Amino acid sequence: MKFKVIKKDRQTKARVGKIALAHGTIETPSFVPVGTQATVKALSPRDLHEIGVQVFFANTYHLYLRPGADLIAKIGGIHKFMNWDNPIMTDSGGFQVFSLGLGKYKFKIGDEKTKVFFGQERKGITGEKLVEISEDGVEFKSHLDGSKHILNPEKSIEIQHKLGSDIMMSFDDCTPYPCSHEYAKLSMERTHRWATRCVRIHRKLKNKPHNLSQNLYGVIQGSIYEDLRIKSAQFIDSLNTSGIAIGGVSVGESKKEMYQVLDFVNPYLSEDKPRHLLGVGEIDDVFAAVERGIDTMDCVIPTRWARNETLIVSPETSRKEQTKTPCRLSIKNNKYIEDTGPIDQNCDCYVCKNYTRAYLNHLYRSGEILGIYLGTFHNVYFMTELFRKIRESILEGKFIKLKKKWSLQD
Amino acid sequence: MKFKVIKKDRQTKARVGKIALAHGTIETPSFVPVGTQATVKALSPRDLHEIGVQVFFANTYHLYLRPGADLIAKIGGIHKFMNWDNPIMTDSGGFQVFSLGLGKYKFKIGDEKTKVFFGQERKGITGEKLVEISEDGVEFKSHLDGSKHILNPEKSIEIQHKLGSDIMMSFDDCTPYPCSHEYAKLSMERTHRWATRCVRIHRKLKNKPHNLSQNLYGVIQGSIYEDLRIKSAQFIDSLNTSGIAIGGVSVGESKKEMYQVLDFVNPYLSEDKPRHLLGVGEIDDVFAAVERGIDTMDCVIPTRWARNETLIVSPETSRKEQTKTPCRLSIKNNKYIEDTGPIDQNCDCYVCKNYTRAYLNHLYRSGEILGIYLGTFHNVYFMTELFRKIRESILEGKFIKLKKKWSLQD
Repeated sequence: MKFKVIKKDRQTKARVGKIALAHGTIETPSFVPVGTQATVKALSPRDLHEIGVQVFFANTYHLYLRPGADLIAKIGGIHKFMNWDNPIMTDSGGFQVFSLGLGKYKFKIGDEKTKVFFGQERKGITGEKLVEISEDGVEFKSHLDGSKHILNPEKSIEIQHKLGSDIMMSFDDCTPYPCSHEYAKLSMERTHRWATRCVRIHRKLKNKPHNLSQNLYGVIQGSIYEDLRIKSAQFIDSLNTSGIAIGGVSVGESKKEMYQVLDFVNPYLSEDKPRHLLGVGEIDDVFAAVERGIDTMDCVIPTRWARNETLIVSPETSRKEQTKTPCRLSIKNNKYIEDTGPIDQNCDCYVCKNYTRAYLNHLYRSGEILGIYLGTFHNVYFMTELFRKIRESILEGKFIKLKKKWSLQD
Repeated sequence: MKFKVIKKDRQTKARVGKIALAHGTIETPSFVPVGTQATVKALSPRDLHEIGVQVFFANTYHLYLRPGADLIAKIGGIHKFMNWDNPIMTDSGGFQVFSLGLGKYKFKIGDEKTKVFFGQERKGITGEKLVEISEDGVEFKSHLDGSKHILNPEKSIEIQHKLGSDIMMSFDDCTPYPCSHEYAKLSMERTHRWATRCVRIHRKLKNKPHNLSQNLYGVIQGSIYEDLRIKSAQFIDSLNTSGIAIGGVSVGESKKEMYQVLDFVNPYLSEDKPRHLLGVGEIDDVFAAVERGIDTMDCVIPTRWARNETLIVSPETSRKEQTKTPCRLSIKNNKYIEDTGPIDQNCDCYVCKNYTRAYLNHLYRSGEILGIYLGTFHNVYFMTELFRKIRESILEGKFIKLKKKWSLQD
């Protein structure tokens, strides 16, 4: 992997770069849509090509459980398995196993109910033990069939090697939010030990010829605490992985806290390594992250929203339509029943050029798959195109101007 | 509408023709996929173009209830509403309203439970009155919200005019199966009176300039009874509609009875009118129908099967895979988990050229929309391509040879 910074913004830390990988080059900053089960939900690989998607993000946890990493390896890797010849990123599986059964639970610091503390069990809302954490790794039950599995640094990297992704993530101890400083520190230190183990096993596995093109990113943790985030940035940066990922910023912090975390780590990251932000992607977050030097960021928003009747529009359209939440147009709203305009009149995607809000409203109301398909196509295009404009603006020295244009405030 | 027979098969009644319509020409014999709610489920109009679909079949009942015929008319008709500029057929809505609540009920002749007799109520399995039939038409409750509606010959044609389909069907009294000769006769006579009313209102509405391009097909009924089918064929043919449709053959008769019905009516239909077979489309049916002079036939099978993990394959592939039912490959079967071959090795559709059974198996097992999309694409392509081959074989005088090749028997 080769990363090259092509242009830096003068007023912010925003930068344009290129990540050259075995399966192609990612122009950065770039949005990374999520394709959990080796499919960006509802879109085919040729749709992704048409949209201009450069890379997507697959989930190790899901693919490990089904269809299985050995099967994918046998078939020739995830690219061949799904007929996608551009770069793919995978996560470590950590986020999913740590989240099992805890998704809907709101944490309080020191909460005894869920025993979130170091070295202990984590239980689901129902009290059932779903995840057990030790220094070695995590033992968990599959959400598919309840079968028991273990994920640890070595196993996570082995699975990611089998999948054959271009960019892999180190296996981290994901802290819930909120989380005491004491717990966050112990958890972060474990994350560092685990990252070291990931680097070691990656080097070992990398020697196998077919794995030469795979690259590892170390993941920074440390919750919302400045001292921990700085320590974590310094440690992960020192590991000499191909890139750096920033984890644990999307699980419940306020946007302000999220941006602060980026400010904390920024000064301690090598300029010559690409930086990935895990699981963040609303429009205001995009500008805040790029402004703070983020090169790539993955997020389920465009695909998940499309399945929930929510189409992404520009702040301009959002204001005009007086949407409840900025940039989210609820296409099933009565007001669109007879609306013959496109989703967003400034969008030039296949959907906006060919279909009306009235037709989309009808498809969504009728529960038709085509609605979700067209909605997803638009949403992913919209984010991909936004990043293209961002790259252009940085190259032209107009990033701040673009940011103002896309500001959610009038 | 202009219909021209280009070539007749010497050994059978199969024929190649062209139906020229305002929105394009249909080369016949042609398969007509179903797009109930103004969308061929899971496919976009551009997919249909790529597949080579010449015409699809929309449902008046569904579109009348949602989004409503007035809305579609206001937007400029169904073609504009859904961005499809090729021909569209619509049914009369009769089949749906007569089927309401009766879908899962097995009829016996003279069955008192469901009071299926002439001029009486029809009740659902639960005893709830869903449909009431009179000489005027049918009063029914919407399956969406229980609201009361009336469909009769005039209203059905008015709705179809508002939708703006290229080919419309006359409103018929659909008999359940089985059905006594006495009831079938009374029902058929009503169908004929209703057809006459349809022709009258169509002529009246046709004078409006934007409706000039719409064409009416009369629908033949008469259950499985030879005398009734002949009478109905003679009567409907005498009405001078643009084309003839054969109804009531897909609701429960054996394949043998279905083919007999076609043999009964055949000698009594004008050669210069296109013939549509309503709701039939398995591979053996296709050859049987084309052989008996059918020009177009609509069927939900390719789209519905794809949503039920069933992919259409050739008899050759079917035998090789030892599928339980001819030509139906159950893609979720364990044996396809590691199968890196295409769905059907003789199919050259986008799906067969780019994706493996293993990937499709994974998508279907994971409940991914992309599975249904790719499955539907293949199934609709498969049927469309089969009809292209059939046209070619008739033109080359090799229809019987092709039929033998596609025979389900080894």
